[in-house]
Amino acid sequence: MVDKSIPDIVIGRLPIYLRSLTRMMEQGRQVTSSQELGERLGISAAQIRKDLSQFGEFGKQGTGYNIEFLTRKIQEILQVDRVWEVAVVGAGDVGHAVANYGGFQHRGFRITRIFDNDPSKIGTTFNNIKVMDIERMSEEIRKAGIQVAMLTVPAGVAQEVVDILVEAGIKAILNYAPVNLSVPAGVRVQYIDPAVHLQNMTYYLD
Amino acid sequence: MVDKSIPDIVIGRLPIYLRSLTRMMEQGRQVTSSQELGERLGISAAQIRKDLSQFGEFGKQGTGYNIEFLTRKIQEILQVDRVWEVAVVGAGDVGHAVANYGGFQHRGFRITRIFDNDPSKIGTTFNNIKVMDIERMSEEIRKAGIQVAMLTVPAGVAQEVVDILVEAGIKAILNYAPVNLSVPAGVRVQYIDPAVHLQNMTYYLD
Repeated sequence: MVDKSIPDIVIGRLPIYLRSLTRMMEQGRQVTSSQELGERLGISAAQIRKDLSQFGEFGKQGTGYNIEFLTRKIQEILQVDRVWEVAVVGAGDVGHAVANYGGFQHRGFRITRIFDNDPSKIGTTFNNIKVMDIERMSEEIRKAGIQVAMLTVPAGVAQEVVDILVEAGIKAILNYAPVNLSVPAGVRVQYIDPAVHLQNMTYYLD
Repeated sequence: MVDKSIPDIVIGRLPIYLRSLTRMMEQGRQVTSSQELGERLGISAAQIRKDLSQFGEFGKQGTGYNIEFLTRKIQEILQVDRVWEVAVVGAGDVGHAVANYGGFQHRGFRITRIFDNDPSKIGTTFNNIKVMDIERMSEEIRKAGIQVAMLTVPAGVAQEVVDILVEAGIKAILNYAPVNLSVPAGVRVQYIDPAVHLQNMTYYLD
């Protein structure tokens, strides 16, 4: 088991490093440096070295990082050297987009369940996955031992759905509904709210 | 003009505060406290007071914050007390989802242009906006003075599109393509990559 005392902010940068390293590997590259990674990501080389040193010695002074080795190590740290089943709740536009999203492959995730309460959607197929009745959600998640969910339901019902997900054993929720969720300790939530991301940038506009 | 010396991480929390305050206002609430906000958001009350104090005196010791006043102040700081026109590039699933997203209203943004290079999409309508030929993108953005764009094109063409956007005057890009972008100083990029968000959480799973 990995050391849980690493600050969240350091953990939060690892997926960004991983994305860059994977891209380099696809380009046939074998070695990189904290300088190069830093330039690509807009993070200082010193910060990258400090972040990575929390997990061990991944590179030698002067020779840089072996991309494949570092990629594998970060995958292990983030526990994405395995495939997590993901349940999507909400078969609207966003649910459809995430079900068809090509960016999960080889990154640790596979969507295997989609739930909705709309009879006109139940039974239809999104990227080879049949949309199931939300009434079956709790049982299905429990049976399959699914721990990861993506929530794409309307804001007004999001908390209610989350309570059921948590009860069924979900431990990590990626929330697309534009609302803050309450979850018990031990359950993590990340938010994807495009308005929040845009508001982050308008501060800097003239 | 606002003080640009405030750390990015503080600015990054303001949209989250704003979302919670707006929700409270919708519920007819008039006063809140840093304690209540903190509990809702999983941020310490001290941190919230410290963040807000960077911009002035918004509450009185013991009486809490006036929700409407604080909301208006944060909207002003983030410059979302006006409406920014937004150009969407890419009329696929994600482009469709963001064009139909209800969460932009009253939050400072209105999508007014959608571009694609696919002849079967050009001329179709997404949420009352006609998809335009990407060939016209540069001219349209320049003419309308649009500074904000959302990028929902495939990863392989994202950088090429960004170079055109930046040349046309775009200063803030919300990137849905799973790839790191290079932009000149003065241009901001935020990333929405669901795999990155999920990888952020798997570290903590057993």
